[in-house]
Amino acid sequence: MESIARSGIITFLSDFGLDDAYVGIVKGVILSVFPRAIIIDITHNIKPQSISEASYLLFTSAPYFPPGTVHLAVVDPGVGTSRRPILVQTREQFLVGPDNGLFTDFINDDAKIFHLNRPEFFLNHISQTFHARDIFAPVSAHLASGVSPEKMGEPISNPCLLNRPKPEIKPDRIIGQVIHIDRFGDLITNIPQKLVPENAIIRIMGKEISGLSKNYCGPAGTLLALIGSSGLLEISIASDSASLRLKAGVGQPVEVIFAQS
Amino acid sequence: MESIARSGIITFLSDFGLDDAYVGIVKGVILSVFPRAIIIDITHNIKPQSISEASYLLFTSAPYFPPGTVHLAVVDPGVGTSRRPILVQTREQFLVGPDNGLFTDFINDDAKIFHLNRPEFFLNHISQTFHARDIFAPVSAHLASGVSPEKMGEPISNPCLLNRPKPEIKPDRIIGQVIHIDRFGDLITNIPQKLVPENAIIRIMGKEISGLSKNYCGPAGTLLALIGSSGLLEISIASDSASLRLKAGVGQPVEVIFAQS
Amino acid sequence: MESIARSGIITFLSDFGLDDAYVGIVKGVILSVFPRAIIIDITHNIKPQSISEASYLLFTSAPYFPPGTVHLAVVDPGVGTSRRPILVQTREQFLVGPDNGLFTDFINDDAKIFHLNRPEFFLNHISQTFHARDIFAPVSAHLASGVSPEKMGEPISNPCLLNRPKPEIKPDRIIGQVIHIDRFGDLITNIPQKLVPENAIIRIMGKEISGLSKNYCGPAGTLLALIGSSGLLEISIASDSASLRLKAGVGQPVEVIFAQS
Repeated sequence: MESIARSGIITFLSDFGLDDAYVGIVKGVILSVFPRAIIIDITHNIKPQSISEASYLLFTSAPYFPPGTVHLAVVDPGVGTSRRPILVQTREQFLVGPDNGLFTDFINDDAKIFHLNRPEFFLNHISQTFHARDIFAPVSAHLASGVSPEKMGEPISNPCLLNRPKPEIKPDRIIGQVIHIDRFGDLITNIPQKLVPENAIIRIMGKEISGLSKNYCGPAGTLLALIGSSGLLEISIASDSASLRLKAGVGQPVEVIFAQS
Repeated sequence: MESIARSGIITFLSDFGLDDAYVGIVKGVILSVFPRAIIIDITHNIKPQSISEASYLLFTSAPYFPPGTVHLAVVDPGVGTSRRPILVQTREQFLVGPDNGLFTDFINDDAKIFHLNRPEFFLNHISQTFHARDIFAPVSAHLASGVSPEKMGEPISNPCLLNRPKPEIKPDRIIGQVIHIDRFGDLITNIPQKLVPENAIIRIMGKEISGLSKNYCGPAGTLLALIGSSGLLEISIASDSASLRLKAGVGQPVEVIFAQS
Repeated sequence: MESIARSGIITFLSDFGLDDAYVGIVKGVILSVFPRAIIIDITHNIKPQSISEASYLLFTSAPYFPPGTVHLAVVDPGVGTSRRPILVQTREQFLVGPDNGLFTDFINDDAKIFHLNRPEFFLNHISQTFHARDIFAPVSAHLASGVSPEKMGEPISNPCLLNRPKPEIKPDRIIGQVIHIDRFGDLITNIPQKLVPENAIIRIMGKEISGLSKNYCGPAGTLLALIGSSGLLEISIASDSASLRLKAGVGQPVEVIFAQS
């Protein structure tokens, strides 16, 4: 695999929250190794230890960064156990974090995966509880500065992968589910645009929506279905929170029923 | 109008919150277009769709940035409808966002306003629901990198403006109102310093305060009036939240009663 | 004292929260003075006016930044009173903020302390309520750009210091207390690793823990004691919040009881 020119950008996603100094500390370590790093927060408000939510946000944000960007992602309930620190190289980008399924959506035949096992790229003292600071931050910084993945770890082929809920395809309908709820209370499903005919009926919790809307507008309280900004089917309520009104959470089934011709 | 030298800074204000990846995605698009952009968050915790709160925070923060800064502001309930994307050029700065009144306080005879209608400065695919990513981010980045507003849009003269509550000036008093509540629970009014004599009586919800304080200090629980950091009259309670204690919100009337001579 | 080469980095910690524009405004002032500043947030969610929490987070984060970094920290209940604005120079770093004890942990025989009393390094207009913007931001920016502390203030030797709770050392035990609670609900104490034998009994609220764990893992609900990432004794509950379960807060006593030989 050829070398990818670095953008100098390191994105950073975690479940550390913004009340403690953890996020700042990781950035201090990065800048100590690579002073010209451009560090961009994705979010640090992942529900504690929610690998699945983190992997969704990572997958929807990474494509918007320039080639050669390093994505540092740390949601790490197994820190200090034998779970491996890894680096994933895709065709254009890099990911660094724990081997717990976070990078599932990026791992395909093009991807190279490395077990980070060269302590010369870590901090001198490795704690049992804060590998973002001690391992992932310095590795990300070295990587963004141009060090090749091969120097920092050993290729592996058995990464931990999440078992993703796939939409079920039936003759007359698609059965999917809610995989994420955003700040506005919109329910984002795992059903991609290409599976949703314009004139389908969308059903959630016994309620039916006829066809797709173009935007979030409508009389307040109207239940809407539309293709959201990630190309996935979303359920929304105009000027309100669909999640609160419907009392729907992640995992809630959503059906796309084909119009009868 | 002469060209304004760019500072390379793009400020970013929105109601996207910090729990999703939206803010990070917008930054990825900006850096893809203009890698040397310096992106500074103002806040992303605007109450969803509160154009008025956003415009207040934008107006109080923009003056503290260097000339040639681009202010990207997206609170956009009408995304995907016919509301126009616009660019406002003031004497020293630029603003980019939806034409829904966000930039009301910056629009005067010196300002030039452009309808952003040149898709070559947008992302290739324009969604119906995320124009911050697809339109405003790339335009802001091109603008910060030096592209002239004239190239990116067409001059217009009929921007959407908010109907601002102005303080009412009577012979014996000023009647204004609370326009913002900050984190400390301080009530910020629309009454500027120049309308408030040092020895005035300030009245809110039947309570009276004699004269202005110099700072927020005083015996815990003391009701205070002072000129806040934006040059506006504020009501505060020492070591407590005026908003919670008084149960006062945005829109609450506040009177400045002139001392009788 | 010799001059310290600057890293160009300014860290920023405050109790301003992220809902207002205060944090953005301070950054605008910094960049107006020193356009190449690299500004890194530590946190802005310090409990309003909690100097003690702020000083803990500052002390645990500063060591991870390169030498020559400026740490701007503003938790400032006394803004507008006679409390002094100060600058502390340690062997490798700089701190800027109010003289109210925030920098207690950095002040030792090596430290030089300056009263910031040269208005030519402030904004032109000094408000009574926002010295972060008017004094501390421009001073931090000048300092990060290379101006020497001696030019900006007068040496002083009587800084305000916090009265820190020190762990009590008894023949058979150490008596310390909780000094911080992090996002995961872990209880961080003031007892450093060197005072905790591997086989000690840790007692909190009548519950006893035998020996130290290596990480946060264990059957859900297990009460654990371990050395956290700052080198201090922590109490944690596997997959849960120790703070919520134990109803323990800052100040809660924690005992380390030595095993009987």
